[in-house]
Amino acid sequence: MARTLITGGLVVTAAEETPADVLIENGTVVALALTGRQHWTADRVFDATGKYVIPGGVDVHTHMELPFGGTFASDTFETGTRAAAWGGTTTVVDFAVQSKGASLRAGLDAWHAKADGRCAIDYGLHMIVSDVNESTLREMPGLIGEGVTSFKLFMAYPGVFYSDDGQILRAMQQAADTGGLIMMHAENGPAIDVLVEQALAGGRTDPRYHGEVRKALLEAEATHRAIQLARVAGAPLYVVHVSAREALAELAAARDLGLPVFGETCPQYLYLSTDNLAEPGFEGAKYVCSTPLRPEEHQAALWRGLRTDDLQVVSTDHCPFCFKGQKELGRGDFSKIPNGLPGVENRMDLLHQAVVDGHLTRRRWIDIACAAPARMFGLYPRKGTLAPGADADVVIYDPHTTHTLSAATHHMNVDYSAYEGRTVTGRVETVLSRGEVVLDRGHYLGRPGHGAFLPRSTCQYL
Amino acid sequence: MARTLITGGLVVTAAEETPADVLIENGTVVALALTGRQHWTADRVFDATGKYVIPGGVDVHTHMELPFGGTFASDTFETGTRAAAWGGTTTVVDFAVQSKGASLRAGLDAWHAKADGRCAIDYGLHMIVSDVNESTLREMPGLIGEGVTSFKLFMAYPGVFYSDDGQILRAMQQAADTGGLIMMHAENGPAIDVLVEQALAGGRTDPRYHGEVRKALLEAEATHRAIQLARVAGAPLYVVHVSAREALAELAAARDLGLPVFGETCPQYLYLSTDNLAEPGFEGAKYVCSTPLRPEEHQAALWRGLRTDDLQVVSTDHCPFCFKGQKELGRGDFSKIPNGLPGVENRMDLLHQAVVDGHLTRRRWIDIACAAPARMFGLYPRKGTLAPGADADVVIYDPHTTHTLSAATHHMNVDYSAYEGRTVTGRVETVLSRGEVVLDRGHYLGRPGHGAFLPRSTCQYL
Amino acid sequence: MARTLITGGLVVTAAEETPADVLIENGTVVALALTGRQHWTADRVFDATGKYVIPGGVDVHTHMELPFGGTFASDTFETGTRAAAWGGTTTVVDFAVQSKGASLRAGLDAWHAKADGRCAIDYGLHMIVSDVNESTLREMPGLIGEGVTSFKLFMAYPGVFYSDDGQILRAMQQAADTGGLIMMHAENGPAIDVLVEQALAGGRTDPRYHGEVRKALLEAEATHRAIQLARVAGAPLYVVHVSAREALAELAAARDLGLPVFGETCPQYLYLSTDNLAEPGFEGAKYVCSTPLRPEEHQAALWRGLRTDDLQVVSTDHCPFCFKGQKELGRGDFSKIPNGLPGVENRMDLLHQAVVDGHLTRRRWIDIACAAPARMFGLYPRKGTLAPGADADVVIYDPHTTHTLSAATHHMNVDYSAYEGRTVTGRVETVLSRGEVVLDRGHYLGRPGHGAFLPRSTCQYL
Amino acid sequence: MARTLITGGLVVTAAEETPADVLIENGTVVALALTGRQHWTADRVFDATGKYVIPGGVDVHTHMELPFGGTFASDTFETGTRAAAWGGTTTVVDFAVQSKGASLRAGLDAWHAKADGRCAIDYGLHMIVSDVNESTLREMPGLIGEGVTSFKLFMAYPGVFYSDDGQILRAMQQAADTGGLIMMHAENGPAIDVLVEQALAGGRTDPRYHGEVRKALLEAEATHRAIQLARVAGAPLYVVHVSAREALAELAAARDLGLPVFGETCPQYLYLSTDNLAEPGFEGAKYVCSTPLRPEEHQAALWRGLRTDDLQVVSTDHCPFCFKGQKELGRGDFSKIPNGLPGVENRMDLLHQAVVDGHLTRRRWIDIACAAPARMFGLYPRKGTLAPGADADVVIYDPHTTHTLSAATHHMNVDYSAYEGRTVTGRVETVLSRGEVVLDRGHYLGRPGHGAFLPRSTCQYL
Repeated sequence: MARTLITGGLVVTAAEETPADVLIENGTVVALALTGRQHWTADRVFDATGKYVIPGGVDVHTHMELPFGGTFASDTFETGTRAAAWGGTTTVVDFAVQSKGASLRAGLDAWHAKADGRCAIDYGLHMIVSDVNESTLREMPGLIGEGVTSFKLFMAYPGVFYSDDGQILRAMQQAADTGGLIMMHAENGPAIDVLVEQALAGGRTDPRYHGEVRKALLEAEATHRAIQLARVAGAPLYVVHVSAREALAELAAARDLGLPVFGETCPQYLYLSTDNLAEPGFEGAKYVCSTPLRPEEHQAALWRGLRTDDLQVVSTDHCPFCFKGQKELGRGDFSKIPNGLPGVENRMDLLHQAVVDGHLTRRRWIDIACAAPARMFGLYPRKGTLAPGADADVVIYDPHTTHTLSAATHHMNVDYSAYEGRTVTGRVETVLSRGEVVLDRGHYLGRPGHGAFLPRSTCQYL
Repeated sequence: MARTLITGGLVVTAAEETPADVLIENGTVVALALTGRQHWTADRVFDATGKYVIPGGVDVHTHMELPFGGTFASDTFETGTRAAAWGGTTTVVDFAVQSKGASLRAGLDAWHAKADGRCAIDYGLHMIVSDVNESTLREMPGLIGEGVTSFKLFMAYPGVFYSDDGQILRAMQQAADTGGLIMMHAENGPAIDVLVEQALAGGRTDPRYHGEVRKALLEAEATHRAIQLARVAGAPLYVVHVSAREALAELAAARDLGLPVFGETCPQYLYLSTDNLAEPGFEGAKYVCSTPLRPEEHQAALWRGLRTDDLQVVSTDHCPFCFKGQKELGRGDFSKIPNGLPGVENRMDLLHQAVVDGHLTRRRWIDIACAAPARMFGLYPRKGTLAPGADADVVIYDPHTTHTLSAATHHMNVDYSAYEGRTVTGRVETVLSRGEVVLDRGHYLGRPGHGAFLPRSTCQYL
Repeated sequence: MARTLITGGLVVTAAEETPADVLIENGTVVALALTGRQHWTADRVFDATGKYVIPGGVDVHTHMELPFGGTFASDTFETGTRAAAWGGTTTVVDFAVQSKGASLRAGLDAWHAKADGRCAIDYGLHMIVSDVNESTLREMPGLIGEGVTSFKLFMAYPGVFYSDDGQILRAMQQAADTGGLIMMHAENGPAIDVLVEQALAGGRTDPRYHGEVRKALLEAEATHRAIQLARVAGAPLYVVHVSAREALAELAAARDLGLPVFGETCPQYLYLSTDNLAEPGFEGAKYVCSTPLRPEEHQAALWRGLRTDDLQVVSTDHCPFCFKGQKELGRGDFSKIPNGLPGVENRMDLLHQAVVDGHLTRRRWIDIACAAPARMFGLYPRKGTLAPGADADVVIYDPHTTHTLSAATHHMNVDYSAYEGRTVTGRVETVLSRGEVVLDRGHYLGRPGHGAFLPRSTCQYL
Repeated sequence: MARTLITGGLVVTAAEETPADVLIENGTVVALALTGRQHWTADRVFDATGKYVIPGGVDVHTHMELPFGGTFASDTFETGTRAAAWGGTTTVVDFAVQSKGASLRAGLDAWHAKADGRCAIDYGLHMIVSDVNESTLREMPGLIGEGVTSFKLFMAYPGVFYSDDGQILRAMQQAADTGGLIMMHAENGPAIDVLVEQALAGGRTDPRYHGEVRKALLEAEATHRAIQLARVAGAPLYVVHVSAREALAELAAARDLGLPVFGETCPQYLYLSTDNLAEPGFEGAKYVCSTPLRPEEHQAALWRGLRTDDLQVVSTDHCPFCFKGQKELGRGDFSKIPNGLPGVENRMDLLHQAVVDGHLTRRRWIDIACAAPARMFGLYPRKGTLAPGADADVVIYDPHTTHTLSAATHHMNVDYSAYEGRTVTGRVETVLSRGEVVLDRGHYLGRPGHGAFLPRSTCQYL
């Protein structure tokens, strides 16, 4: 029986900060003891003195190999999950995509095929439902049974992923009946498309117009609408990538009413802004994602929402496209720029930086990055915490070392960094996935296929 | 030069209560004088001692001869405007309807043809736009030039009148540019249609299910959405037939922000409720209209909204269908009941009753029934007030006489009254339209064709 | 019988804009007629062609000869009401003051003595209650019977005018029972006094600290508290001199609930700001008043509140102290600067400027400056409108002439103007008070003692 | 070295539910291990199979021996803390009282003297400041240094504990500077006293009038005011015994703004109502406490507030007075009924019942009863959780056994139970305090003086 021991660190979870030794057997945390009080022996011992010992990050919003706008997100499950591990994330939940006209099953199988045997860390799958109809609604309970318990719908992208309000209501009703959780991309797509068309017709084709046409009010409107439809259906709701303070206000109002409504934001909305979209030349294309980046003053509202728990989760919406050859598809027409940013490797560091900057407490860092996403998507307490019985997905985190984010050094398969040149305090030192060492002091020791598919239970906030 | 004099009454307008004589020449109010202080002579003198002298009512939401669900509203412009006059209303604004695929012009011409030469009182026309597209958008300024300055869209009735959010946004932008006012039927049609289908499939076919499926939350949601789209467009918005307190709350919130957002309710929402929809047998069908009647507790909120000016206008949405042969089309399937109630004859009395009951002041009665609708739709000060220069549309109103509303005595061309047996205090005694006596002490003296088309200016609240 | 005729002007009231001739007999408006349609003769005829004919202004918040901080407001009833007339105001309501320990009666008698025989225009009196106790509560109904129907309390100025919450509640209960209206100076005095003491102790003695210690949050808090106490008492409430947007938000929230809560602001809050308080030298003292001027961004909120009717009245809180010898009492200690600004002469012009600037419509100008204050304090329709039966308090207003506000030309008895050098468009041309010409084309024709005490009915908004 | 082992239970903390063995050495939790995976030996072993193993309860609001209205709360520190232990509470924080005119020090010493050597469990002390002045403000930092880090003020009880808003502001400023936490009894005392006097004068003397005069609006008003004063001071705020949903709404609004504002409620507000106050005879006196019980519909809002974290803590405000001889002091005058209820023994059970009833999750039960109060008042992680390093204050809780609350069986020194006859599911089986067994299967094994004074750090939510 393989025993691993991590001694002397400060174990930080969403709830506790404990100077403790962590004993791991066969991939599972089996005991925590006050530092030095148990004389445990082990096959492998890590000395974490002066370091944090934290649960591995759980990134519940990634898009490896996503087909979008005639191209594919540039990270495969192999490269993307490896980069995640480099960044201290030990679980991702990616999105299988139903093709219009095809079944959910076909989409799910396709994504299983992409991921199977290739991942460095454990992974789950959500299901994007492009086509809500009698047939796909009937498939939902089966997927839930297989551990694909969350279903993403889009109020944006008419003609592609878009569902109308009737379809959304039906899917929510089905979720309410079967325990599924609806994840919503909340932007008013039909209205945005009018503004896109007008902008292009008016010669406003640069990347920054992407931010102007996808108005905060139209994100807030869709958020409000999704909440009301969820109320009618009696269903919970998880709103992805909240970027506008007005949208956050809708979530806060709903939560004050006690409604089971949840929200996620992403590091790019916390650290980047429309100023980036307006960078000279075509540089702004690097920052094109949807919902879009907002003016800088929205950031304070998002940080506050994370503190007040009106936002529960920070994921990355990792969806990288290379600047060369991919982002460039939209030169002269911002609407053709593939939507998405790389980030899966940077999230834990950027959120630790928020601790350093005073936006968050240490425990809240772990909560929004590990515990809450795990609970939200039915992975707790296997993932997201360090307690006896948890998977030994453990990160030894050095809170004092600084390093600089850069495409030159990152491990994501993309030719730019959205945070190029930004220096952060704190760095991943060691990463264990189910007790196996994936990364240690700058050496990648993982392998494709170590990561296993995670069948998930239903949302644990309900 | 024909001179008419009304002496001794209390002249009540939205702003003043003045014991005054009113002098009319050639269809126009030319002077008001303190009672008895001018020794005017006239061809015809009405003694209004002990009575109110008020501007004729302005009902800005009627549907004469509206085609709906395979039948037609049972009042023609002739019968409907005559009934209006009986009830103290001297101006109606009806809705011309664009047929899908046809031009606005064709629809407007058709409605002019229906109304021309038949009306007992003056009338204007709004335009229902069933099909927002490049062509119809281009027609809007022309119609505004002809005095058709308001355009109704529907967020309900997919496949019939429904516009999607992109179409709504375009129409609002056009309104913002040209001075038009968008009137909105605010209910989430696609979501409601799902609930309708489920109700029918579940055997819930009685009229009361009409009220259950058209949920208050879905009226509120659409109201919120319309407001946000109007903000994006920089356009004003007028929400028709507000019935849910939650929808009213959305209007109030918008108005607190100073947005040019307006709301109308109707007597049926103030006096009737889902209890009526649940009347035994198929009686509930008499009360089927959309937005639907709400539980009784919504009434207090609506009265309050009228007092706080979060609602500005009370119209009737007069759209009568006989119980026999018309409402009966929906036996066994509430979704086939033609939507609409008669009411054009009852509005002034029902709102005076609200004065008697303490819901409204006398001046507010005249405001919501005469002045505000006239201003809202560009008819002020010709209509809606009594001041020198106004059209002599005058009602002598006896505030003390009681009478009982009934299909047996009313003049609308419909075989039932929504207020059957209800006794009200106050009654129209004399009605003048541009100085001509249309009604006097129970004698109808009007004629088809007296009423003229009113080209309207743009909204006077902006 | 003296007849006066005003011909050819545009008669503007809160509700109507009518090109009409106005006939006046014996101090009363007896008739309005469409311009040129009645061939009235008169003793005196004013040609108002191209001008507005408006009701005289009603300024419901002035403090002539107010004792404050060891000095007296520098305008007597004679000089102050004459200046009011110069500015187109024909009614003021001033404040009689109860001295601590004395009766309301004694205070009222003293103020009657000050005003009687001296006023150029009609005047009413509110009563400041410095000492709510069994005895003064018993006096309230008697005063209401005499036409002193409104009672001002202070949540500020502990030890001087201050009432505690128990006293406030008792006075509100008495008002609820007897029809009186409580006017509230809403600032948390005990908290402010702590901040004043700390500022002075810290050497922060300049006028601008007056604005810093009297925090917007403490105005908002007191406003909220006054509203809740009024709810408990079942009483209406009128909040004087609202200057903070946060306080306005409390009023708006209360009004959305349908509560009988009203608010007044003043020109200084609409046109001046903390920038004035921070003027170099001791200049800022000119702008010391309470509630204090706020940062400029509050102005937009106040204008919006006037448009949304969350504020109903603009008065001046006219309380002039000369810079020399009076304001100077506070050199080195802002807390010793007498609180107050001159303004009674400027209000009508400054609010007309708001029409020119697009903040208000013409009708809203008359509403907030004439009609609403008259209604609020029981003077309608004698004052505040032009309709048959109204007092002939009439102003012919030239909307096109410009002039410059200055102490060099104004008629208030004070050595500075808060608006020195500001050019406004629009000017009073002629002023009639009960039919008598007080001012005509730059000639003052009035006299002390023409103005009569106005016994007022109770609030006409209830 | 004494070793204790608790095996086989489900360890429930605010964050985790873990089937684990708990190892205790020398009064401290030293390790947790997956059940059965460590072969620990111990001096004493408890088999918790089928039971919960939870942190001992932390009740941060008790009043042992409180002098009130001429009598004393009937539980001494000896009897009260023993009863607490019977109920699974292992920490209380009581209130030392400053007498008017005396120093904080004198009050604190007096309370130390009452408690020292008598407590069955550990205890801390808050300080009631009856008299905020220069001297007492200067004492605050010293008390914080001694571990008395929280200071209670009263907006109620004029003439007794009452502080005016200036005093409150000063105390909050001092708290902001020194790390202290202001606890507020938020009711508008001056206004309530008016209503009390009027009720008594009107012959409304029964206990139920206690609930009527202490109006929800006046709790909400004071809550709002306390929040605004805290904003001005830049201080955190903890509002005690929130009972009105309107007060809760003020907290929720403040928290949405990200303000450091916290709230506590008590079991009596969750389970009892004005119906109890209205019980026949003088029975209602048993339920007289302040803030008062509210109508039943407030309960749902409070439960929701606990779920949404707008309320963080449930304490008891344990302040027992015997019905005979104590509550009876108020026969014929409800204002003379000593304010307070017994409850320290019942809290953990009543909140577990809430888990059974579906109001709360198990983890939230432990959060509001153990973890949050410990963090709020600087006791974490010694108290409030079970983690390596925590004090071994542990309760083995049987979630299945039922028992009936009754004065006949309870251990509080009071002759009635506020929950007489109520059967609850769940019961304390074993209680350890710092590793010592205080209670085991119905046998009390504790002793006076085991409980030690807990110097507390400052609030851990800041």
